[in-house]
Amino acid sequence: MRDLKTASLGERDKRHLWHPLTQHKTSGDMLPITRAKGCILTDDEGKDYIDAISSWYTAVYGHCNLYITSKVAEQMTRLDQVVFSGFTHEPAIQLSEALMKILPENQQKLFFNDNGSTATEIGIKMALQYHHNLGNDRKVMLAFEEGFHGDTFGAMSVSGLSVYNGAFEDHFIRVERIPVPNGKNNEEVLEILKRLISTHNIAGFIYEPLIQGAAAMKFHDADGLNEILKLCRKHDIILVADEVMTGFGKTGKFFASDHIEEKPDVICMSKALTAGLLPMGLTSCSQMIYDAFYSDDLAKGLFHGHTYTANPLACTAALAALELLNSEEIQQKIAHISERNKQFCRELKANPKLSKVRSLGVIMAFELNVKTDRYGSLRNELFNFFMEQGVFLRPLGNTIYILPPYVISDEELDKIYRAIDSCISKF
Amino acid sequence: MRDLKTASLGERDKRHLWHPLTQHKTSGDMLPITRAKGCILTDDEGKDYIDAISSWYTAVYGHCNLYITSKVAEQMTRLDQVVFSGFTHEPAIQLSEALMKILPENQQKLFFNDNGSTATEIGIKMALQYHHNLGNDRKVMLAFEEGFHGDTFGAMSVSGLSVYNGAFEDHFIRVERIPVPNGKNNEEVLEILKRLISTHNIAGFIYEPLIQGAAAMKFHDADGLNEILKLCRKHDIILVADEVMTGFGKTGKFFASDHIEEKPDVICMSKALTAGLLPMGLTSCSQMIYDAFYSDDLAKGLFHGHTYTANPLACTAALAALELLNSEEIQQKIAHISERNKQFCRELKANPKLSKVRSLGVIMAFELNVKTDRYGSLRNELFNFFMEQGVFLRPLGNTIYILPPYVISDEELDKIYRAIDSCISKF
Repeated sequence: MRDLKTASLGERDKRHLWHPLTQHKTSGDMLPITRAKGCILTDDEGKDYIDAISSWYTAVYGHCNLYITSKVAEQMTRLDQVVFSGFTHEPAIQLSEALMKILPENQQKLFFNDNGSTATEIGIKMALQYHHNLGNDRKVMLAFEEGFHGDTFGAMSVSGLSVYNGAFEDHFIRVERIPVPNGKNNEEVLEILKRLISTHNIAGFIYEPLIQGAAAMKFHDADGLNEILKLCRKHDIILVADEVMTGFGKTGKFFASDHIEEKPDVICMSKALTAGLLPMGLTSCSQMIYDAFYSDDLAKGLFHGHTYTANPLACTAALAALELLNSEEIQQKIAHISERNKQFCRELKANPKLSKVRSLGVIMAFELNVKTDRYGSLRNELFNFFMEQGVFLRPLGNTIYILPPYVISDEELDKIYRAIDSCISKF
Repeated sequence: MRDLKTASLGERDKRHLWHPLTQHKTSGDMLPITRAKGCILTDDEGKDYIDAISSWYTAVYGHCNLYITSKVAEQMTRLDQVVFSGFTHEPAIQLSEALMKILPENQQKLFFNDNGSTATEIGIKMALQYHHNLGNDRKVMLAFEEGFHGDTFGAMSVSGLSVYNGAFEDHFIRVERIPVPNGKNNEEVLEILKRLISTHNIAGFIYEPLIQGAAAMKFHDADGLNEILKLCRKHDIILVADEVMTGFGKTGKFFASDHIEEKPDVICMSKALTAGLLPMGLTSCSQMIYDAFYSDDLAKGLFHGHTYTANPLACTAALAALELLNSEEIQQKIAHISERNKQFCRELKANPKLSKVRSLGVIMAFELNVKTDRYGSLRNELFNFFMEQGVFLRPLGNTIYILPPYVISDEELDKIYRAIDSCISKF
């Protein structure tokens, strides 16, 4: 074995690291990234890549954003961490006040956690325990086919898109599913829903509003979704919106739920919440949910708690990120990218090699009219093609999508579009 | 409603924050903490409290430790975050190499995640999918009565101590339980285990080695545990050690598993891993586990992944923390606190008002011989009594325990001991 110091980062990586969502026998080597600044990732050989998906939809204000990092650095000198049971602190309080200004008005209480999976687990627990506390016998969750809500057992259970979860399916919580409304099947979906409501005691409905991220940026019909939510509400089914991917400006509004009339009871947040700097999750809810847990009976409380809940550094990052999100500059950038995406979509729509060309806010996606598996060889060819062009995209099967940082320049966006043009010509 | 700016932090906290493990109707107000440095937490009125439980067993090198925060601040200028699927980075690689030097020798691969719950969920998934991939029909987990492994659905399921999880029990994964070996019941526990093995297809055994944290620092008999582990291994039951609380020096060795001959296949880590600065979890495993997932068959991979997996800032904090842990200074401090705890235990053992006076490493605990509920009124009286003395402890029922930061001074440790003396006199 070579000396650690002379081995390359890639070789050292292989010795002891097991990467997420990776079959190491068939995957290639992991590419070492040594620097990130703004929209650019730089590898260990000095090659630059535009981060066209904001590092899994997180770093929307650009990497190593000085406004955010300087506030976190300052917070690190004052208060790093304190138990959030029995104690509180200013970063969490300020963040709660800032979030109240942009969340749908019915959202009143915030429950902190650490990532998207825990945010949805708590959403599911709020729905189930809400009914439990009220004495209702409701123990079934409702979810969309092909939804994705995370990788812990509760989150996996409600995820329809659990293609590789065969080892765990016997352990899933009880879930019924409906298709996503696409405008053509809206009535049919409502009929399926009515049947499920009449035959199952459904506690809650968890859904990614308008866009299913992991299902390769699948768009819904907003009216169809609104009708589903109205029917659920009529039957006291708790509405849990998973805005982990869609939240914080990506759809052109603060939350995807802002595009829909019927508001959720619970909203799950993470990813861009902390601007790609630090992990944090957050589950908000309405006063009605909170009140069902507020009782002289201790057991009616939500006995959930992660050690680093409301970590002051992550709260500080989130607060600084919200200030940027609310700024005129970022709002204009979001509107500008949205408009440019729309224009690019208009150019692509006539191309017979593509289908489902679509965009909402900074999210833009289309399908290449070729057959492939989600993680098949074409997917890897596409990934490599874009990386060679200096653009980091993460195709899912034959779906190519972008979700660029809000701070992207016109030149960088052009480079992404041109790489996509080349890709379409080649494949 | 008063203006936000004139309202106190405590009042502002109540408007929108829902705290973990808290029944807000019966709990008191949350105490605002404005600063933390070393072993001292300071509230919004300037009162100091010794952090005698290292903020839930995390901040063992002291709060806002300059050695660690300066490295994280520097990392924030270089690389904040990158997708860890397809990419890698130096902080994760260096951390993996540093961890290999202190983990039990059979541990070879590291799977990153975000907290203790996800660390154990992945441990459970490794055990279940290991057997699934080998074609074994094993779908039952084994766990200790009164174990605690987290709050997501998989983690809740294996936790015996789920007193307030009534709303979720119908959704738990299949778990069988054995009592904790206490030296007197070792043979009996082995008999129960033999019966369970013969009647159930047990995939894995998850256990907190030697000390159950949330079960009020319940100590095991090491020989009894070793016999259990040996019997499990003989039957190919995957051993998943939950070292979230016990890891990184608290028991006087790097891991509690270092006190036990039979080594785990999987180790779950979090809490002190990142020194109380940032959230991160980590699940390590042996080559045997990894090899069962390494295949030309994509579906045999572990398709689990959190967005902030191996966050470079958290990795940097963990790496700096490990350097401190390995230092002669910290090792001497751990030995010194362990010795002082032992001495204090000798003083307390004669006291008829106490039982089960015990210590291991920096952890020291005893029971007050009074009846109380886990979250009953005596518990709150004890908490308030210590806080008045300027000592932050978190009694669980009638159990009082300390887990001080390794950097605590003799004077601070004296103050904790004297507060405990006063408490024993009073209650």
